[in-house]
Amino acid sequence: MASTTAVRAALRTQRIETPSWAYGNSGTRFKVFAQQGVPRDPFEKLADAAQVHAFTGVAPSVSLHIPWDKVDDYAALAKHARDQGVVIGAVNANVFQDDDYMLGSVTNPDPRVRRKATDHLLECVDIMDATGSRDLKLWFSDGTNYPGQDDIRARQDRLAEALAEVYARLTGDQRLILEYKFFEPAFYTTDVPDWGTAYAHCLKLGDRAKVVVDTGHHAPGTNIEFIVAFLLREGKLGAFDFNSRFYADDDLMVGAADPFQLFRIMHEVVRGGGLDAGTEVAFMLDQCHNIEPKIPGQIRSVMNVQEATAKALLVDAEALAAAQQAGDVLGANAVLMDAYNTDVRPLLAELRAELGLAPDPMAAYAASGYAERIKAERVGGAQAGWGA
Amino acid sequence: MASTTAVRAALRTQRIETPSWAYGNSGTRFKVFAQQGVPRDPFEKLADAAQVHAFTGVAPSVSLHIPWDKVDDYAALAKHARDQGVVIGAVNANVFQDDDYMLGSVTNPDPRVRRKATDHLLECVDIMDATGSRDLKLWFSDGTNYPGQDDIRARQDRLAEALAEVYARLTGDQRLILEYKFFEPAFYTTDVPDWGTAYAHCLKLGDRAKVVVDTGHHAPGTNIEFIVAFLLREGKLGAFDFNSRFYADDDLMVGAADPFQLFRIMHEVVRGGGLDAGTEVAFMLDQCHNIEPKIPGQIRSVMNVQEATAKALLVDAEALAAAQQAGDVLGANAVLMDAYNTDVRPLLAELRAELGLAPDPMAAYAASGYAERIKAERVGGAQAGWGA
Amino acid sequence: MASTTAVRAALRTQRIETPSWAYGNSGTRFKVFAQQGVPRDPFEKLADAAQVHAFTGVAPSVSLHIPWDKVDDYAALAKHARDQGVVIGAVNANVFQDDDYMLGSVTNPDPRVRRKATDHLLECVDIMDATGSRDLKLWFSDGTNYPGQDDIRARQDRLAEALAEVYARLTGDQRLILEYKFFEPAFYTTDVPDWGTAYAHCLKLGDRAKVVVDTGHHAPGTNIEFIVAFLLREGKLGAFDFNSRFYADDDLMVGAADPFQLFRIMHEVVRGGGLDAGTEVAFMLDQCHNIEPKIPGQIRSVMNVQEATAKALLVDAEALAAAQQAGDVLGANAVLMDAYNTDVRPLLAELRAELGLAPDPMAAYAASGYAERIKAERVGGAQAGWGA
Amino acid sequence: MASTTAVRAALRTQRIETPSWAYGNSGTRFKVFAQQGVPRDPFEKLADAAQVHAFTGVAPSVSLHIPWDKVDDYAALAKHARDQGVVIGAVNANVFQDDDYMLGSVTNPDPRVRRKATDHLLECVDIMDATGSRDLKLWFSDGTNYPGQDDIRARQDRLAEALAEVYARLTGDQRLILEYKFFEPAFYTTDVPDWGTAYAHCLKLGDRAKVVVDTGHHAPGTNIEFIVAFLLREGKLGAFDFNSRFYADDDLMVGAADPFQLFRIMHEVVRGGGLDAGTEVAFMLDQCHNIEPKIPGQIRSVMNVQEATAKALLVDAEALAAAQQAGDVLGANAVLMDAYNTDVRPLLAELRAELGLAPDPMAAYAASGYAERIKAERVGGAQAGWGA
Repeated sequence: MASTTAVRAALRTQRIETPSWAYGNSGTRFKVFAQQGVPRDPFEKLADAAQVHAFTGVAPSVSLHIPWDKVDDYAALAKHARDQGVVIGAVNANVFQDDDYMLGSVTNPDPRVRRKATDHLLECVDIMDATGSRDLKLWFSDGTNYPGQDDIRARQDRLAEALAEVYARLTGDQRLILEYKFFEPAFYTTDVPDWGTAYAHCLKLGDRAKVVVDTGHHAPGTNIEFIVAFLLREGKLGAFDFNSRFYADDDLMVGAADPFQLFRIMHEVVRGGGLDAGTEVAFMLDQCHNIEPKIPGQIRSVMNVQEATAKALLVDAEALAAAQQAGDVLGANAVLMDAYNTDVRPLLAELRAELGLAPDPMAAYAASGYAERIKAERVGGAQAGWGA
Repeated sequence: MASTTAVRAALRTQRIETPSWAYGNSGTRFKVFAQQGVPRDPFEKLADAAQVHAFTGVAPSVSLHIPWDKVDDYAALAKHARDQGVVIGAVNANVFQDDDYMLGSVTNPDPRVRRKATDHLLECVDIMDATGSRDLKLWFSDGTNYPGQDDIRARQDRLAEALAEVYARLTGDQRLILEYKFFEPAFYTTDVPDWGTAYAHCLKLGDRAKVVVDTGHHAPGTNIEFIVAFLLREGKLGAFDFNSRFYADDDLMVGAADPFQLFRIMHEVVRGGGLDAGTEVAFMLDQCHNIEPKIPGQIRSVMNVQEATAKALLVDAEALAAAQQAGDVLGANAVLMDAYNTDVRPLLAELRAELGLAPDPMAAYAASGYAERIKAERVGGAQAGWGA
Repeated sequence: MASTTAVRAALRTQRIETPSWAYGNSGTRFKVFAQQGVPRDPFEKLADAAQVHAFTGVAPSVSLHIPWDKVDDYAALAKHARDQGVVIGAVNANVFQDDDYMLGSVTNPDPRVRRKATDHLLECVDIMDATGSRDLKLWFSDGTNYPGQDDIRARQDRLAEALAEVYARLTGDQRLILEYKFFEPAFYTTDVPDWGTAYAHCLKLGDRAKVVVDTGHHAPGTNIEFIVAFLLREGKLGAFDFNSRFYADDDLMVGAADPFQLFRIMHEVVRGGGLDAGTEVAFMLDQCHNIEPKIPGQIRSVMNVQEATAKALLVDAEALAAAQQAGDVLGANAVLMDAYNTDVRPLLAELRAELGLAPDPMAAYAASGYAERIKAERVGGAQAGWGA
Repeated sequence: MASTTAVRAALRTQRIETPSWAYGNSGTRFKVFAQQGVPRDPFEKLADAAQVHAFTGVAPSVSLHIPWDKVDDYAALAKHARDQGVVIGAVNANVFQDDDYMLGSVTNPDPRVRRKATDHLLECVDIMDATGSRDLKLWFSDGTNYPGQDDIRARQDRLAEALAEVYARLTGDQRLILEYKFFEPAFYTTDVPDWGTAYAHCLKLGDRAKVVVDTGHHAPGTNIEFIVAFLLREGKLGAFDFNSRFYADDDLMVGAADPFQLFRIMHEVVRGGGLDAGTEVAFMLDQCHNIEPKIPGQIRSVMNVQEATAKALLVDAEALAAAQQAGDVLGANAVLMDAYNTDVRPLLAELRAELGLAPDPMAAYAASGYAERIKAERVGGAQAGWGA
């Protein structure tokens, strides 16, 4: 096995970004259950995100969602973030919550709607300029519900056109990172349904366009770690949106549904250099908590990613390679399982001690009184809901 | 092939119930897109449903959803329905849209919530008494999102207890019909996830408890017509909730995603006596229209069920049985496909002519001016949304 | 957590049966890869199975497959087993490898074939009488490939008739245990496709008919532990056939594809009394090794079941119940995950030491020289292949 | 709707290639059921394939599988084909049925095995030179069964290397067409699991490398017509391998499981120019018949493709585009469904009459006496089985 010192050193450099929208209310199409103490504006969301960082030490940045997190003064928002100990991360464009987008945004048959949608994407780059964000994360809900509803191929043409215009607007080290999703909210076709589609578009755009792998966005049975390995080999893996699901949701805490899968993914990340210094792979959470408390839900998710990463780092790469080369099926599998079966919680507790943190972030947060404080203080005003 | 006269005679007896909630706005967790002219109360919903019947001739009843369709005076509502040419059909209980139900309704670990939920179910039977409805349709969103969240087995005990209490409250020919659903909105366990679970509970309840097959509520690859055949053989198929889906939604128009599957289902219905006089099988639509206009969406759905039924009735049962008995794989399949490949639209146009209806219900509705009228008239007031 | 002493005591009583067919060659429809040293007859299969027991201490019985394991003298075979330190377990009927069964066995449209198939099942009970086996395990490959090919409902009638005849033949504590399978080798309908179908038939047969849950035989996304919990609550869970799969095979080593799922299953087994003294639940492996060596594949599988069981036994049932009752979603999940994240390998090593076994069965088997010995000795004769 | 004259003209140009291996015995891993009269060598396979062409008029070429169809004299084989009225089509390489390939062929960790596999591919190009075949169709069964078994990324490197060597060997208008498959016979990873992987490799190889879409090789819920539209837009759709499946087989007759899906695929083919003169899209069947007679199975499959194509050609493209552009969801869907709901069998009967063929190929073949003749004549010798 790898030395635990080396493992801790590697873990110390990992950064996991949490999303502003995880701190507000969310739900399913059937019901959004309201919780007490949820933020009422972007400033309060950043304050909550800062708690996750305070107790885990590895979540120092926060993704914004525009227009949900629109403010008049982004410099003030960025300063507020820094005052809380975090920074603003990726900017997520939202072109799905306006009545105009019923039949699509950048792929809409109506050129007026396409213009509006593309303008929103360009506005997001303006915001990135203001916040100093590197990444423009694009997810399109665009697609169709019925066969024949629209022209599949023409929609790709429209998509390519919008992406090209936005990509041309980027400057410096800014990136366009493109997310794919198997289905939902469109139910027949989705305009970026799989990694192949995202990859093909990114290839044409250029080096600063990369693919986002959202762990909840695949057909049943899809081998996600294969995709991760493939994109890393191609230099096209831009980021993860972490979450988990048993069947078709994508909002359960990462690692909750299949911790072994998360470990296998992190094994390919380690194998492919995705944790190395200077990696272009960003680790982000993208999950909303419907029935569990928001901040603990994020803390636990961050811990789950850390545990999977620690196990992946523990894999004895030399022994694994030797068994693989020898065609020793059970032996090679056993090397991997040895790492997976290791209880890494003591190692992570040690790491936290080194960082001056409490060994158990969940318990420490619970003991901090923050949850009670926000319940008491955040009374009145509109609670931020999903989409708010 | 069966004679077209016999087919038309059979089709003439088929009844397809539409749901009140199909006429209001609906959407996904991402967005509910508002449409103009949607109903603002249960009375307007019934008026819209009556249009579907007026143009198809086979949709004379409307399912209610309680509390969405709660009114002070059910006699007045029933009279309003009759005045429009329709009647009130099944009563659907709703125990999923109250904050109390976050962790379940009748299976909630908290006995207070269970009591509240069961009381709601009993109230629905009171309403059935007032409206003269035969069927209490039960769908429970109950389940859990995370392993360990609750005790799977204890939840079954609680479910059985609530069902028994409600079943005991039924009188006369009233029925309890129990729907199962593979997943959603619970993402880890669902308390009634499959037909086996619904069947086992109904078996214990008694003869007036039957299973509802919602065509959109199955795991990928599930052979739904097998379930239909099996439940008919057991005398336990109470009703269909029709809709369709490509992957995981259950709100597309029935027959839109896989018309061949719908035909196979109707073939088993015909085979199992589910269209015979006195059948206990009720045909209901359960689908909401997110991006398509509501009334035409229901009309088209009704037509899709009719077309599948007509094809199923055209199957040459004698030739099929002979080929099956002879082990003639391709021959037997060909008998079925011959019926499926038949264009039954002329036959249905003829049927409509016999009934004094326009041959093309979609065109006739479009020409009627109703859509324009409700857009103009239904201004002000709160539009009924899904759940409203 | 539960005390490790109690856990070891419970583990000491667990029995895992291995299948005779796991020791021969097997493969996919594309290719059966031959391995050296595989058994050439049932006696050699039992010898190999005895090795699995010798190194794990918990696999003292072996399932037979008839006619693959047909011998002239079952008393001699049983004595041979005992001499090796194992006993003969369940008898598996095989009605799928004769040309007559192309269109089904007990559900075949041809009464002659049905008679032949049922006679084979009755012959299996004769063999049970001779071997002293308790369980007749029935899996039917019966089904259809094309819509219309045969009458779904009539096939259920034929199935019920055959099962009733066989059930009536059982004596003493003999049981009929019925396996279901989602699909394959029939590709359109399967006559026993899900637990509901198996359950309904067993219910009609009587108390000594129980359902077999094969962990590899479900639609994607199916919650298997729910089924386990449900059948235990109904007193109808007869046995497990353990194996695992990522998509559609069912021959990977149990626990290899999703160890967390196996743990959740064992958690429901513990919760439902399936490990208690006098339980009717039999734990069996049903998997063939295509590319991995046979005996080590079985040893590792047995260990995987033990590890999942140990973790399930470690769950702090009291803390779990308290968190569940309090509606503490994350707390309840954490109780379960604490047990799952525990490294139970030291505990199992201790258990083996108590039993006088080597702490690492894989290493001990490798060091024993048995593999080399059989490669050298088993030369000539026909290697037993899958189906041989 | 398009004029039926234009439709018949387009249909007249369509060519559907049948595979030599469809005419021999085949089955599942559970059993290969033998049929009487199946070919005993490649010459007899070609004779059977010629029957399919004789009765359909659109299946003038036959794919070979090497080494199953290895002969000493390919010129003689080609002449024999021409004598029967057909020609030799694509050459399919087989690197999965040798014991050496247990852990992979071109991606095997052992360089000796990789060399052997690549040499086989090169030999296939030699055969193409001899037969005048244009297409080298590559499907790799390569992958792994267990996590850790081999290095996912290294296998891609090996694959790329082999493909490059083979591609460099092509001359003239020869093409390398690369097939992907979701799973099986490898159960954990597959080295070319999806269209994205095949596309990325083909992109690097060059213009004469194209992707093969096998309609049975996708995860559940995958929108295949999207992939078809996408690849056509990219100029990378080389061929179809047609077949169908309900869950995980890929050998049912094309169009048997979901005729509406086949229609949607053909609609995208028509939309994307895949039927135009000079198209690079080859239409091939790749299916084996387990329980149905071989030649009628192929005839029916060819007819199914024709029917779907005819319906796709009937789509009123102008009306569809207008409805799509207007955002008329139901109207656009209705245009598509109008074509689908049309009974095109009379149109195809007319086409056949024009070509001097019997209107019903199935009946005509049955009446021809060919089936009885081969049963009588092909006695003795080894029947060609799948893989033979």
